[in-house]
Amino acid sequence: MPLNPADDAFAETLSRALPEGTLRRTEPRYLEEPRGRWLGISGWVALPRNVEEVSAITRACNAARVGLLPYGGGTGLVGGQIAPDGPAPLILSLERMTAIRATYPEENVLVAEAGAVLADVQAAALEGNRLFPLSLASEGTARIGGLLSTNAGGVNVLRYGNAREQVLGLEAVLPDGTIWHGLKRLRKDNTGYDLRGLLLGAEGTLGVITAAALKLSPVPAATGTALLAVESPAAALSLLALAREQLGEMVSAFELIGRMGFDFLAEALPEVRQPFAEAPAWCVLVELGLTQGMDPETALEALFTAGMEAGLVSDGLVAQSEAQAQQFWDIRERIPEANRHIGAIASHDVSLPLSALPEFIETGLTRLAELGEFRVNCFGHLGDGNLHYNVFPPKGRKKQDYVDVRADVQRCVHDLVHEMGGSVSAEHGIGRLKVDDLERYADPAKLAAMRAIKAALDPVGIMNPGAVIRS
Amino acid sequence: MPLNPADDAFAETLSRALPEGTLRRTEPRYLEEPRGRWLGISGWVALPRNVEEVSAITRACNAARVGLLPYGGGTGLVGGQIAPDGPAPLILSLERMTAIRATYPEENVLVAEAGAVLADVQAAALEGNRLFPLSLASEGTARIGGLLSTNAGGVNVLRYGNAREQVLGLEAVLPDGTIWHGLKRLRKDNTGYDLRGLLLGAEGTLGVITAAALKLSPVPAATGTALLAVESPAAALSLLALAREQLGEMVSAFELIGRMGFDFLAEALPEVRQPFAEAPAWCVLVELGLTQGMDPETALEALFTAGMEAGLVSDGLVAQSEAQAQQFWDIRERIPEANRHIGAIASHDVSLPLSALPEFIETGLTRLAELGEFRVNCFGHLGDGNLHYNVFPPKGRKKQDYVDVRADVQRCVHDLVHEMGGSVSAEHGIGRLKVDDLERYADPAKLAAMRAIKAALDPVGIMNPGAVIRS
Repeated sequence: MPLNPADDAFAETLSRALPEGTLRRTEPRYLEEPRGRWLGISGWVALPRNVEEVSAITRACNAARVGLLPYGGGTGLVGGQIAPDGPAPLILSLERMTAIRATYPEENVLVAEAGAVLADVQAAALEGNRLFPLSLASEGTARIGGLLSTNAGGVNVLRYGNAREQVLGLEAVLPDGTIWHGLKRLRKDNTGYDLRGLLLGAEGTLGVITAAALKLSPVPAATGTALLAVESPAAALSLLALAREQLGEMVSAFELIGRMGFDFLAEALPEVRQPFAEAPAWCVLVELGLTQGMDPETALEALFTAGMEAGLVSDGLVAQSEAQAQQFWDIRERIPEANRHIGAIASHDVSLPLSALPEFIETGLTRLAELGEFRVNCFGHLGDGNLHYNVFPPKGRKKQDYVDVRADVQRCVHDLVHEMGGSVSAEHGIGRLKVDDLERYADPAKLAAMRAIKAALDPVGIMNPGAVIRS
Repeated sequence: MPLNPADDAFAETLSRALPEGTLRRTEPRYLEEPRGRWLGISGWVALPRNVEEVSAITRACNAARVGLLPYGGGTGLVGGQIAPDGPAPLILSLERMTAIRATYPEENVLVAEAGAVLADVQAAALEGNRLFPLSLASEGTARIGGLLSTNAGGVNVLRYGNAREQVLGLEAVLPDGTIWHGLKRLRKDNTGYDLRGLLLGAEGTLGVITAAALKLSPVPAATGTALLAVESPAAALSLLALAREQLGEMVSAFELIGRMGFDFLAEALPEVRQPFAEAPAWCVLVELGLTQGMDPETALEALFTAGMEAGLVSDGLVAQSEAQAQQFWDIRERIPEANRHIGAIASHDVSLPLSALPEFIETGLTRLAELGEFRVNCFGHLGDGNLHYNVFPPKGRKKQDYVDVRADVQRCVHDLVHEMGGSVSAEHGIGRLKVDDLERYADPAKLAAMRAIKAALDPVGIMNPGAVIRS
């Protein structure tokens, strides 16, 4: 049975059961998404102040068979936050639930509401001299609920894990409107199925996360940043192994940048300072977070030297100041901006088994060359096997001329990823963009289990309809 | 509709579809469990050699409505591996599926079959100069499938996480017999719901794990072990915070031992060497796993000194050799054996928010004193907030005299744990022992979701019937 739209009649009835101003007509910002690929059609947005209001809204939607679209910071890249067609769902924005409910520095725990912005959570942790390690480019806008619902990744996964690994407990509203009071602050809890892990990464299709007990970590006593030039992705991987042998978990980030990344920055963002006189074929950005008594420069130079001796590293720059470290990070973090200026034909957020990465990068170029002439900017979180593998027109051409081959390019890249045991969505999720990919590449038994779980927990199908699983 | 028993007729029919010798009559070892609380009633055990045979067996059970009881090393402490009543299920032992299918030291990954014994997996990892960090007392017997299905804990959770955190991918047979080929070796994979996390810790009630891609870690360059005497659990927690500030993730284990632990060892196992002239009120066993260039003795002495200066540590012993480190670990690891000699009235595997631990320990004693005179041996994985809180008769009395108060003692302890936001099963799971506890203490929304998931994935209810969720 199809869902009903969240029309004016539904909104007016629901409004009467809620405090004034909880429901509003949507503004354009709720209907746009970063890549401009879709435009939402929702007419109403609910702005609850607490979990009880979320529960009342969810219950009403479930009873009226009206779709509910949980909305965080709106930064998702796969359309999980936008309903472009079908019966218009009610948008449920958590933006009024921004409280840091409590911090427990002695437990390394912080409890935040779903609407809290990531940067604010990081700052609250730092006030207690603790680190909330989740870190990504959109941290000034992205909200905790969205980050957890999409199991966000970012630059510190190598050391601290994905968003799912940062969560001890959840408070959430299930599709029938019941509240799960699961805000446990426990490191070990084997009382039944991992409902927490199931909601994390479900992209709002199994319920709405309203608050989370988050793991904190000690703040490293010192950090060090370096750019090390390497000959190939294989050399970069060997260097990573060396770094982890020398420094264990103190390797916080290990990012890959290719020559195309430097070229794109020079072409699109000439104000970004180029660190090397001549851009190396490949380069890694290493960040260390060290414990007391260790000196970042010494540690990085030891890695540099060992890398040189092993024939892995040909050149390198160790940041001499916080400002220089920031410059190095700017190079990495502004590559996506440069990419947008150049204009990608197709972008891919893929992961591979670590040892398959070099072959993937090489074979990808060969296979793409069979489709035409392209430029590939391949960069990303090498330590996690996660590449952003983006395909561009040759210099002087525009992406608009390549609309026809876009699907072929994506299929080519994703087929190769799949053949090599990788994932076609490493950190961005499925949203609406990759529903077809999921159906094409997912293991059939897993897909059947997902559908059974969705039907069991959300039999009416109100939660983020059309995302992840076709409605 | 009730299940049918795995009787001779069923076994003989199934036998004909499988290679000779796959089905056998059960030997006593499959029907006993470590605490001797229950005796199993199963008449037949299946011993498959590969996932296809597991699939065929599961499919047959599902079609015939016959229960299936996945069996690992048989070391579980909550009766998850024993069916003492109801229609006799078929036992499915993974003991023939012991292969280490592959190791990828350069990826920090190892793929093991479910029947592999933990110690063998640890050894295979070490051959590649890598660490598989899951470690617990039964590691010479416990098998990977059981360890993962119960989301096992152990002594290294503080640093490396529970079993669930050690798994990148799974191969499993779902209740309808379909095979989930999910042996991904990826650090990031956001393609749909976390079916992996759901099967991990489901105690075989949602499917049978047949193989896993496991995360490895670098082997620490040096390890150091110390026993540090502290005045109170609160002081122990402050010392933990200090240790993590000094050493970050290099604190691998942080175990609490109380005076009662030393007294019990002296009483029951006098051959265990007592480290202190006079047993301290409380003591922590600290293990460090250090990176290159760090000296364990220096690091432990720095912690010792800082602890003394902060008024947290009153005495301490730093192991001077591998043998002495082993002696220290023996003290910790033989406490359960001493407990068995003394004879507990009731044992509890609980976890608390870290900052609630001191109050829990104190209030627990007060509340128990209202029920009678007892001795409490409280020890465990302090860093994880996980205590084994075991209640014994006063000296000279026997547990047999306390059968009547056993339930009251358990209720008293578990009620307190629940009031303080803790878990009544930190690392052992629910099995059959704690089904009532789960129903009493679990959040109703979570329990309803668990039942819905169980019904969705296992509609006939064949998988480990009676464990976790009442059948």
